[in-house]
Amino acid sequence: MTDSRASRHDSRTEAIMKAALDVALEVGYARLSIEAVATRAGVGKHTVYRRWCSRGLLFLDAVLSLNTEGLSHPDTGDVVADLRETMTKAVKLLAHPPWGPLYRALIGEAQHDPEVAAALNRRFIEPQTADTLARLKAAKEQGEIAPDFDLDLAFDILSGPLYYRLLITQQPVTDDYIDSVLRAVFAGMSPRSRPVRRRS
Amino acid sequence: MTDSRASRHDSRTEAIMKAALDVALEVGYARLSIEAVATRAGVGKHTVYRRWCSRGLLFLDAVLSLNTEGLSHPDTGDVVADLRETMTKAVKLLAHPPWGPLYRALIGEAQHDPEVAAALNRRFIEPQTADTLARLKAAKEQGEIAPDFDLDLAFDILSGPLYYRLLITQQPVTDDYIDSVLRAVFAGMSPRSRPVRRRS
Repeated sequence: MTDSRASRHDSRTEAIMKAALDVALEVGYARLSIEAVATRAGVGKHTVYRRWCSRGLLFLDAVLSLNTEGLSHPDTGDVVADLRETMTKAVKLLAHPPWGPLYRALIGEAQHDPEVAAALNRRFIEPQTADTLARLKAAKEQGEIAPDFDLDLAFDILSGPLYYRLLITQQPVTDDYIDSVLRAVFAGMSPRSRPVRRRS
Repeated sequence: MTDSRASRHDSRTEAIMKAALDVALEVGYARLSIEAVATRAGVGKHTVYRRWCSRGLLFLDAVLSLNTEGLSHPDTGDVVADLRETMTKAVKLLAHPPWGPLYRALIGEAQHDPEVAAALNRRFIEPQTADTLARLKAAKEQGEIAPDFDLDLAFDILSGPLYYRLLITQQPVTDDYIDSVLRAVFAGMSPRSRPVRRRS
């Protein structure tokens, strides 16, 4: 491809992704069709299908093209404060358009389309998990986390309740909620004075 | 309605719900249409629309008509064992057809349809939460849970990680995973010897 053709290709790709987000925000993902996206982007349907084989994968690319800078964890030496900062930022993104409704719609689509689910994990969830894990490893080395705590679970336990609110009860995830989750997860449910019963 | 008309009404309602589940399991919820359901049930489209105003609400009724007996918590005096038993049963249901793919599809639809989301909460999530809460309250009174632990959070923290696996990473939720979550949530992430830092 010559430079000018490559650049026209890129700008068309961007126009299609932007059109997909606009249409999803306006009429909802359930009514988003390749045809509506093509019309909005001013291209033919085949131009869309040449780039994406399903509306789910187009929508995934479009949502992940949105800016999510600043979602990596700082390291101030206080793991609870650092987790709180990142969780608060993530939740703020998700509380409002465009991210909020688009990300929920994307996870909705992932329930019906295994390709979308796999790509969402590979491109978004796994890097986030790795970043949290690195921060938690440092905290463990600094004695802020119990030496026998299974860090592979930590991301599920910290983000599970937030996803649960986002996707199931759909109650707002407030700063107070994040704070309560952190407090609860760090303190644990067991009374502090007695050992935790374990199944051997 | 006379008795025989009422009974014909009921049996048609059941036939339509069964058809909706069959079609969803065969071709996936994304391709489930009222037309396909009506054809499968041997009724006209209007017969379906007279009972349900959207395919989402029909699907919700159909999924919730499936048997979920035995998901209430026993009380053996050991809260971790009782939670483990109920979580294991729930996860077994969700690991296989018909519940697994159908429930995931239902939550997917709830991301696009606020009426489905609201009804799912009212009819399924809230009763489950209340049952867990009652079991945890008893455990707190028996000294198995720290007196200052916020029980309103407990359901989110216990089920959040399971939903996270089911809906996001889509990794299998094994008995070992349930056990690890229970251990982690009861023990907490903090080292046991030092007090948990709290924001006042």
